[in-house]
Amino acid sequence: MSDPTPPIIILDKSQMAENIGAVARVMANFGLSELRLVAPRDGWPQERAWATASGADWVLEGIKVFDSVAEAVADLNTVFATTARPRETRQPVRTPREAARVLYDDRASGLGVGLLFGGERAGLETSDIALCQGIVTIPIDPRHQSLNLAQAVAINAYEWRTLVLDAPPPNFREGEPPASGALMLGMYEHLEKELDAAGFFHPPEKFRSMSQNLRVMLGRAAFTAQEAATFRGVITALSKGRGRVLARLAKKAAGEEPR
Amino acid sequence: MSDPTPPIIILDKSQMAENIGAVARVMANFGLSELRLVAPRDGWPQERAWATASGADWVLEGIKVFDSVAEAVADLNTVFATTARPRETRQPVRTPREAARVLYDDRASGLGVGLLFGGERAGLETSDIALCQGIVTIPIDPRHQSLNLAQAVAINAYEWRTLVLDAPPPNFREGEPPASGALMLGMYEHLEKELDAAGFFHPPEKFRSMSQNLRVMLGRAAFTAQEAATFRGVITALSKGRGRVLARLAKKAAGEEPR
Repeated sequence: MSDPTPPIIILDKSQMAENIGAVARVMANFGLSELRLVAPRDGWPQERAWATASGADWVLEGIKVFDSVAEAVADLNTVFATTARPRETRQPVRTPREAARVLYDDRASGLGVGLLFGGERAGLETSDIALCQGIVTIPIDPRHQSLNLAQAVAINAYEWRTLVLDAPPPNFREGEPPASGALMLGMYEHLEKELDAAGFFHPPEKFRSMSQNLRVMLGRAAFTAQEAATFRGVITALSKGRGRVLARLAKKAAGEEPR
Repeated sequence: MSDPTPPIIILDKSQMAENIGAVARVMANFGLSELRLVAPRDGWPQERAWATASGADWVLEGIKVFDSVAEAVADLNTVFATTARPRETRQPVRTPREAARVLYDDRASGLGVGLLFGGERAGLETSDIALCQGIVTIPIDPRHQSLNLAQAVAINAYEWRTLVLDAPPPNFREGEPPASGALMLGMYEHLEKELDAAGFFHPPEKFRSMSQNLRVMLGRAAFTAQEAATFRGVITALSKGRGRVLARLAKKAAGEEPR
């Protein structure tokens, strides 16, 4: 059996082209090759990246650029967000070693897998973390947390390669795989639109945090594509049902008989 | 029990101050603090290192500078050289994970432990690797081997920290610890001086490779301080004995009776 294709690295809002080059270099060191950029500050391509890539040109030349994290993960099934351990989270938190193992098993099972990294200063937004299937936290000394972006990629890429060289028998996923990022996002947006219409997000400024909580909650269920479709059916049924009730009430108020 | 003190990082002939700063930064990320420089190209201190250390000033401020690897490892018992796997070696080769475990056990047993890294371009000299107790090889993709110096330190420092956080019960060394680098170097030099006087290194241009092979061979035995002293006694006895035989022959040739 050949090695599973390595995970895709996704850099969100990276600032310095030099760091993109350094990431490409270290990806090549550990046998990774597919790099995606989400809204790079200075656009892409940037000549300065080639200077720090130290010859890993094929990684830079293969880069794909996206406008949002949602689009960058749309075709992937299992994406982990690399970030400091959040004070409070309902998403599973793994070490780089544990994460490499899950990505390895999922990739061997034919799923699209990736690792998401935040920008140099701001890190990842909670709403983008909520689109991921879990969190990877590098065991940094809390007294000195500022880890260089390329170093964070290096640690994870190294764990991937160490695992691939060990070549343990993969634990294949049984049954249907989890739905893609695109299917899940469509489902979330459908739910949120209907909930919004129903006045669920109250007060309205709570929309953001409430919808994120819902995404994280539902995300943990790891719906298959079929289950996501079923759940959309549920949303439709509930909201249409509500629509019928409202129509009935409106007619009643107008003195008509309900059908 | 408190965690064992982390290994000392030793950079041989580092060229760019920016890299020294980046190494300090990543050491701090993973809880390491003691950094030694051997013959840094531009001298030390260098202001540019502070710019890339991202606040890990205490690491830079604690740096000690040495003229040679031998001096930098003189007080240490277990030092691993981080380098690509040599085509041919008689020294044990370990992964960063395996090396961290040995250093952890040795440190918990009270030994001085360290990791030696070569300069950005030239890497480590064979003669300096021969002073180490083994080799650490990071599992790099052979198609893209140029690993950044700070990344190499990062991988090893990360393995150390991951192990310390797991806090496995240390396997304490039984019996006497191995001799320090200084004691071993003294023993090697003693041996080589006497062998040279005896015409062992023939032809003379073979001195370098032959003495290195001897150091590696004997190094594997991991002599205790007592054993190193005993071995020096052996060297002395053999060479003095040879001296006596020579004196006897000389007297015989001059027509005198041997005593």
